[in-house]
Amino acid sequence: MDNDERLIRELVNTWMAASKAGDVDTVLSLIADDAVFFLPGKAPMLKAEFAAATRAQASGEAPRFDGTSEIQELKVLGDWAFMWTELTVVTTPSDGSPPSKRSGNTLTVLKKEKGKWLLARDANLLAPMQFSRASR
Amino acid sequence: MDNDERLIRELVNTWMAASKAGDVDTVLSLIADDAVFFLPGKAPMLKAEFAAATRAQASGEAPRFDGTSEIQELKVLGDWAFMWTELTVVTTPSDGSPPSKRSGNTLTVLKKEKGKWLLARDANLLAPMQFSRASR
Repeated sequence: MDNDERLIRELVNTWMAASKAGDVDTVLSLIADDAVFFLPGKAPMLKAEFAAATRAQASGEAPRFDGTSEIQELKVLGDWAFMWTELTVVTTPSDGSPPSKRSGNTLTVLKKEKGKWLLARDANLLAPMQFSRASR
Repeated sequence: MDNDERLIRELVNTWMAASKAGDVDTVLSLIADDAVFFLPGKAPMLKAEFAAATRAQASGEAPRFDGTSEIQELKVLGDWAFMWTELTVVTTPSDGSPPSKRSGNTLTVLKKEKGKWLLARDANLLAPMQFSRASR
């Protein structure tokens, strides 16, 4: 595995671990200043909006996040790269209501700035799934 | 505008014109053989599935398509490129039932093969919109 590919896989692992830990600062440190996030049926979201939404979600009675991100393809193009993943996110509210599960793909463009890989453009195509304890 | 950017803009225009004309062969000629399409809540779709779905849609009492695709960003990275667009698609069934409108963003990876730009990875984040004749 080439070094850039290894660094990008580390970024994905760090992102997932920080999301689970509610460590918003670490998540934001992985995002380029000019990043754009795309969600179905929503206007494109810039980093400042993403940061505000993530901080709001992590404050007070924050839900617990769990999930997996499996890289299906990763292609490095010099100081840019793209990848797509299979992502599953399970959100458990702190009030005891049942967890919800979202699953689907992401298509992400990354860029290397000063030797560090960052998320640059991210399309998140997750949709709600029927949550079942028996599901595999 | 550099030549690759011009060619990619032509590809988008050709795609939209062919879609409106129901010209499936032209649409398919703009897609790399190993392309992957991503839609919210769906499994990734390969070119063969995309072709079958598009041919089925264009046969028989085919609906009429109209719409606009506005490139918001286009970045060429050698023989690869990525872009995102604001896309609106209006579908008018042939049976006289009312048109439906879908709107949102696309994030697309393109590649150049033998001098020709092709769609390689495409995340389509369109969602249904309230259709109104008064909407701008």
